[in-house]
Amino acid sequence: MELLDKLRWRYAAKAMNGEKVSQEKIDSIIEAASLAPTSSGLQPFEIMVITNQEIKEKIRAIGWNQSVITDCSHLLVFAAWDTYTAERINKMFDLTNEVRGFKNEGWENYRQMLLNNYPQKDAEVNFQHAARQAYIAFSQAIAAAAFEGVDSTPIEGFDADALDEILNLREKGLRSCVILPLGYRDADKDWLVNLKKVRKSKEDLVTIID
Amino acid sequence: MELLDKLRWRYAAKAMNGEKVSQEKIDSIIEAASLAPTSSGLQPFEIMVITNQEIKEKIRAIGWNQSVITDCSHLLVFAAWDTYTAERINKMFDLTNEVRGFKNEGWENYRQMLLNNYPQKDAEVNFQHAARQAYIAFSQAIAAAAFEGVDSTPIEGFDADALDEILNLREKGLRSCVILPLGYRDADKDWLVNLKKVRKSKEDLVTIID
Repeated sequence: MELLDKLRWRYAAKAMNGEKVSQEKIDSIIEAASLAPTSSGLQPFEIMVITNQEIKEKIRAIGWNQSVITDCSHLLVFAAWDTYTAERINKMFDLTNEVRGFKNEGWENYRQMLLNNYPQKDAEVNFQHAARQAYIAFSQAIAAAAFEGVDSTPIEGFDADALDEILNLREKGLRSCVILPLGYRDADKDWLVNLKKVRKSKEDLVTIID
Repeated sequence: MELLDKLRWRYAAKAMNGEKVSQEKIDSIIEAASLAPTSSGLQPFEIMVITNQEIKEKIRAIGWNQSVITDCSHLLVFAAWDTYTAERINKMFDLTNEVRGFKNEGWENYRQMLLNNYPQKDAEVNFQHAARQAYIAFSQAIAAAAFEGVDSTPIEGFDADALDEILNLREKGLRSCVILPLGYRDADKDWLVNLKKVRKSKEDLVTIID
């Protein structure tokens, strides 16, 4: 299928050429991330879309000096909620009632269950859970970029505390999880571009239980 | 774009009709998961593909009795490595050398860096990291299923320890993270199918830094 062909084409570009990605494509990639499923529909994360070159330089300095951070067109930062609060949960449940135009008893009971559960938990446990949801969105952004013929480089290798400081994320109750430079590969400068993609054998990846 | 249309069509089906998904589509969905990027390319997870009805019944019993677990065509279980070991890291690095047909000094130095880092870390920290990688693959499976017109239901709501026991995952050094029933929606029985999809406003999701 066409999507698989694009996912086979995708790789983690190690050099980008500075060419701009169109706003239309960026919008599609962000919409794909927004459409991703999340636990209880809470979407416990935000996305920073960075084109400011000075900020990108600062992030490169705390990101193992990876050139794609500055040579990309748009740098996405996925930042998860530092914890689940009653206010955050209520906001999404209220929005749901507003969008759907009615209240529902089962839904309200479910809200209460979450309110009785999440806010009392350790913030670190909640953040780890929220981060997984951010990864679901991050992954759909990667797939959508590939589908649009846009290169991306998934990066965990950065100092998250330093990035939080650069972007003032902690003040907003957010913690950075993962970043995604978007742009176009610079094939002449990229050592990875012509190397074969390596994946586990199907036997090592999949167990059939029939 | 076509992928976005499919992602808009996607929702977390709450009832499935038992219809079988073709092997070709299942293979595509699994390949999409396998193609997903992971940290250092380690693919620190496995996927169980369950069609056995007795096993599905057992999982439903520890999965909040959600009907899609038994009424789906194929139930995918994403299980992450319980920790990173030298053996596991070396296996992927050796495979890379084999597939690419050469050794590379930079790559060998990178191997040593991982060997000097991961295995010494707390197993729980390593598992949490591996689980995030499993979520990237899980999300690409969801996108690929939608692209193929196959419904899926992302589920975190199950007793992970009990599932590990049902599938003997701990003996294999794995821990279940998330499950994904694949099949076809039963629109007549699904309370969610006709409700509007709810997502944060773009203003609440995205911050532009230009």
